[in-house]
Amino acid sequence: MLSDIQTPAALIDETRMMRNIARMQAHMTTLGVRLRPHVKTSKCFEVAKRQRAQGASGITVSTLKEAEQFFAAGFDDILYAACIVPSRIDRALALRRRGCRLTVIVDSITAAQALVDKGRSEQHAFDAMIEIDTDGHRSGVKPNDELLIEIARTLHHGGAVLKGVMTHAGSSYDLDNHEALARLAEQERSLIVAAAERLRSSGLPCPEVSVGSTPTALCARDLSGVTEVRAGVYVFFDLVMSNVSVCTPPDIALSVLTTVIGHQSEKGWVIVDAGWMAMSRDRGTARHGIDYGYGAVCDCGGEVIAGYAMAAANQEHGIICRSDGEVDRDIAERFPIGHLLRVLPNHACATGAQFSEYRVIDGQNPIATWERFDGW
Amino acid sequence: MLSDIQTPAALIDETRMMRNIARMQAHMTTLGVRLRPHVKTSKCFEVAKRQRAQGASGITVSTLKEAEQFFAAGFDDILYAACIVPSRIDRALALRRRGCRLTVIVDSITAAQALVDKGRSEQHAFDAMIEIDTDGHRSGVKPNDELLIEIARTLHHGGAVLKGVMTHAGSSYDLDNHEALARLAEQERSLIVAAAERLRSSGLPCPEVSVGSTPTALCARDLSGVTEVRAGVYVFFDLVMSNVSVCTPPDIALSVLTTVIGHQSEKGWVIVDAGWMAMSRDRGTARHGIDYGYGAVCDCGGEVIAGYAMAAANQEHGIICRSDGEVDRDIAERFPIGHLLRVLPNHACATGAQFSEYRVIDGQNPIATWERFDGW
Repeated sequence: MLSDIQTPAALIDETRMMRNIARMQAHMTTLGVRLRPHVKTSKCFEVAKRQRAQGASGITVSTLKEAEQFFAAGFDDILYAACIVPSRIDRALALRRRGCRLTVIVDSITAAQALVDKGRSEQHAFDAMIEIDTDGHRSGVKPNDELLIEIARTLHHGGAVLKGVMTHAGSSYDLDNHEALARLAEQERSLIVAAAERLRSSGLPCPEVSVGSTPTALCARDLSGVTEVRAGVYVFFDLVMSNVSVCTPPDIALSVLTTVIGHQSEKGWVIVDAGWMAMSRDRGTARHGIDYGYGAVCDCGGEVIAGYAMAAANQEHGIICRSDGEVDRDIAERFPIGHLLRVLPNHACATGAQFSEYRVIDGQNPIATWERFDGW
Repeated sequence: MLSDIQTPAALIDETRMMRNIARMQAHMTTLGVRLRPHVKTSKCFEVAKRQRAQGASGITVSTLKEAEQFFAAGFDDILYAACIVPSRIDRALALRRRGCRLTVIVDSITAAQALVDKGRSEQHAFDAMIEIDTDGHRSGVKPNDELLIEIARTLHHGGAVLKGVMTHAGSSYDLDNHEALARLAEQERSLIVAAAERLRSSGLPCPEVSVGSTPTALCARDLSGVTEVRAGVYVFFDLVMSNVSVCTPPDIALSVLTTVIGHQSEKGWVIVDAGWMAMSRDRGTARHGIDYGYGAVCDCGGEVIAGYAMAAANQEHGIICRSDGEVDRDIAERFPIGHLLRVLPNHACATGAQFSEYRVIDGQNPIATWERFDGW
């Protein structure tokens, strides 16, 4: 029973999660590409094992700690998808020497040169990809920038294995409909394929062409020229993804179980023991059409209780009230002290990170506890 | 040297921290009240031991996990400052039976009754305080509400030890000058003293009168009738407290050490390896006069580099640029790949919580590593 769980707790509805995994895998299979899930969302071996069992090929990580932890758990094909800095190359090398097929990425001559210098001095050929900027939101080299060829030559002629190019259309989080997302997916695809073609026409190898974000992955209609897709948050989904239009709240597999600890009845407030320490400070829906505050409120069965949201949060206190601003004067009777609620998160990656374990449920029955790790 | 530390890392400048501890303790001593620091900010024994050594009396916690951890580390006078729910009373009782002087708080008949029922069945007298609402921002009973007397009678006649009243003027975080804060501190004081007087004139005991928030504590001019003050974030301070006007950036003892991993030179962007996973998603300065984005940028010595801020953050990527919106075209030369920066946090409680340890520094020399814990 959920009442056996100390609150706040991070719940995974396994049925929903497995449905989310199957949906993404099926779409990737239809489009003829490999899926390399980004495990920064769950940081949990049990989740990644289920993605692998359903057909995923390798994993993506955002930190070397993730690479080390997942390698120790039996994942040996790992793309470290944040540009490597010189001071971290030793740690990457140590992983590779232990047998991990770790690929690193660079978007500068400085980092590429440091990688080949280290490779030369250690007689080691690193696997490297070049990050391409296809939507201007973060890192990467523009596909038509001369720098792309220079970095590729530095790697290839310096003794590294130039595995290809990768990009992440993170600006997809700002869109809200499938047409716009399909256009961005095509932009992501066509620009990185152009980058790959530039490398090949310069006589450089580019076997891998890697794209990805959950929204563009799910809305892509054609991925010609792409070899693999990376996506993370689809495994749980969240309210941001619901607002972006790639899922609905009943698809969201992660929720925070919380207990009512008090009321301010004349204001129509319920106070619960999940504050921002549990939900995270992520307010990703604030800029969207539907602002869920710190989360959407569900009953113990995971059904959304329409009209309520966590409007505000202190460190260990969440304030739940009507989302239309009306005062619910019966709120203390509706949600009495000790009552359990579940709160769907704005951003599953941020909320999951506030917990050291997930409680896995089948319906309302706890069936397992899965550890997750943190840190760098 | 700072370059020996893997980034991102949470740094504590011990000199600044000790100055912050001394400042608060001196003010409390001058006002003739005890200081009971809120350890939810640091969740670190070494920090709390230094607060105790400088004169603090007992600690405040926001979760039972904090109470359990700090009790195991030798802190036995603990106020658990979130209303207890019936399902957690067993855990509180277990702590008390092991010798912890744990005080719990309630703001409802339901919780008060559950406490005395458990006490009766276990032949145990719990120490309890009643939370008072003095500024309408969260939990607590209004000082003039008849409910106050009812809760007090339930506790006192039910066999609990009614230790007194407590309040937290959390709305102080929305103010920005000492005059307004001094007025709120006086409101906090006068309303809780009125609540205490109501209890006493009803023949009920009220030995303790506890108030606190860092801003009201530092700006209070008179605390007549108050016996103790609780404050947390003062130990580190942060950019929210700077905007609230109770510190300046050079007082901030917590910073995040980060490495430059790339640039988008034509946009004037530096990309660093501290994203929101390191800084937290807290955007507490967004509603203030000075919006620092995800943090203010400092050199390795902790001096603010005027004109730069972390304007945006992804999970493991922070984007640093000029805060006036101008494009710094020399930014790649100014902050090359591998360069170390320190970022002051919006909210120390939220940023600290992203790390499992603090690296303590004296100037730029790492001198210790202090563990911190998380969870519930």
